[in-house]
Amino acid sequence: MIRVIEAGPRDGLQNQSEQIPTAKKLQFIHTLADAGYQEIEATSFVHPKWIPQLGDCEEVCRNLPCREGLTYTVLVPNMKGLERALACDVQRVAIFTAASESFSQKNTNRSIEDALVDFASLIPRATGSGVSVRGYISTCFVCPFEGEIQPEAVLRVCDRLFELGVDEVSLGDTVGHATPNDIEKLLSLLLPRFPAERLALHLHDTCGTALANVLRGLQMGIRTFDASAGGLGGCPYAPGASGNVSSEDLLYMLHRMGYETGVDAQIVARAARELGLPLSSHQQQLPQLPAPKRKNRPLKDGSH
Amino acid sequence: MIRVIEAGPRDGLQNQSEQIPTAKKLQFIHTLADAGYQEIEATSFVHPKWIPQLGDCEEVCRNLPCREGLTYTVLVPNMKGLERALACDVQRVAIFTAASESFSQKNTNRSIEDALVDFASLIPRATGSGVSVRGYISTCFVCPFEGEIQPEAVLRVCDRLFELGVDEVSLGDTVGHATPNDIEKLLSLLLPRFPAERLALHLHDTCGTALANVLRGLQMGIRTFDASAGGLGGCPYAPGASGNVSSEDLLYMLHRMGYETGVDAQIVARAARELGLPLSSHQQQLPQLPAPKRKNRPLKDGSH
Repeated sequence: MIRVIEAGPRDGLQNQSEQIPTAKKLQFIHTLADAGYQEIEATSFVHPKWIPQLGDCEEVCRNLPCREGLTYTVLVPNMKGLERALACDVQRVAIFTAASESFSQKNTNRSIEDALVDFASLIPRATGSGVSVRGYISTCFVCPFEGEIQPEAVLRVCDRLFELGVDEVSLGDTVGHATPNDIEKLLSLLLPRFPAERLALHLHDTCGTALANVLRGLQMGIRTFDASAGGLGGCPYAPGASGNVSSEDLLYMLHRMGYETGVDAQIVARAARELGLPLSSHQQQLPQLPAPKRKNRPLKDGSH
Repeated sequence: MIRVIEAGPRDGLQNQSEQIPTAKKLQFIHTLADAGYQEIEATSFVHPKWIPQLGDCEEVCRNLPCREGLTYTVLVPNMKGLERALACDVQRVAIFTAASESFSQKNTNRSIEDALVDFASLIPRATGSGVSVRGYISTCFVCPFEGEIQPEAVLRVCDRLFELGVDEVSLGDTVGHATPNDIEKLLSLLLPRFPAERLALHLHDTCGTALANVLRGLQMGIRTFDASAGGLGGCPYAPGASGNVSSEDLLYMLHRMGYETGVDAQIVARAARELGLPLSSHQQQLPQLPAPKRKNRPLKDGSH
């Protein structure tokens, strides 16, 4: 069983240039919930000054559809965000820092150490309220400002996050430049220290290598992958901001490889289409096969 | 050392709806030759009634730029095509059939057996003239008309092609539906019979799995991959006609994984751009990193 975590409502929608109406977001989440996910990242409690796209996080949280076996996660940047999230009765929160000092500074205006110090009070406050905590580490492979990131830098942050009480760490290829050898190198360092079921891969598909990286992760024992319906997330022209690996493309590969996920890829694809946004996933461009028209026409084009 | 065979001038351009001027094709091939390829599939001698896009194959052949260590291949459908190719002093030809009977009928108006019978006279005629022969097998995994193809069907055709005198067989995922387990299943059957250096993978990226499939092929010992600059080849809305895996995306992954190819990915990407056609490859959409503008702007968006 592979756990695919749907990050579209948060990681996908936070990068849209236009404001999506709350009702449309909730419709998106409803359809995703119908698809059978165990976990959906619903929104973010980052200050609306920084992400106006998710300024309706309270309203979204108050209207999430209940489904047996489905947990919603919300992103919280700091204690203030956590308190707002707790007031909305969230089940699970995600915190985030980076493996690259420069990225931490640019993305959150604070050092990795300052983030970890904050988390030392934030995490117990969450878990003490019965809310579990997931940790994200951005730029685990390549940083848009520093370039190559050493796996040891990821290990240090990972170690601290688990010590502080997160139950899972999601390893982010934020700029989407990793290739399977990078996945192998990092996991070779982490897996002797942490159980595979506590690690997730959060891959972006900037260079088209996301599914190859998923394969390497699978081969090494990773069973949790973050993805975004439709491949939503970021403009391909913005540095380091390409979309997450598309949920339906990931589900296609996993299902055809014989893995079970419990998620219906067709419903996920429909959820993404209902948003009416441009979608980058391959499955959205896929023709129906076999194609009746082609059946009666000799092609003779030497296709292979 | 990985051998990447550039198929863009043939497999890419044969699927364009507009007629590309011969001079532009030759410019494309010139730039690809400058990139350092060992092998480029330059054109096809399929009758222009079926592929008007490559009706200028003779003119293209007569003007191919010579480069030390570079061989050009041309596609030939039958003896007549071979004779036309031989008259142009070609170095290497490629013949094609399929693993699926229905696809063979639709694509070439003849059965697999009829094709093999033709090849029994075509191949000796080519090799007797000092021209080597590559064999393509289409629909090695999924056929748009029959669905799943059994690896045994591929084995039978592969066996015959080698018996008849081809020096290499390229295994085509024509509709681009294969996933890494399909690659593994087929290669597990073929590799005990044929040396890995006689097999190539010819992958299309319809479902976004091409690079994951390349990875599985690499892991199993395959060292030759066909690709197309810019990911050219076919309209995403035409059933089974999506583009080849993009050469520059493939080269990016291979080079970052530490493999040598002798090919300059930047020059390949430039060759594709010079055509002025829409390109599907990830590398063509890639921003330059690090991006100076972003350096001075805090993002604070919780990106990972």
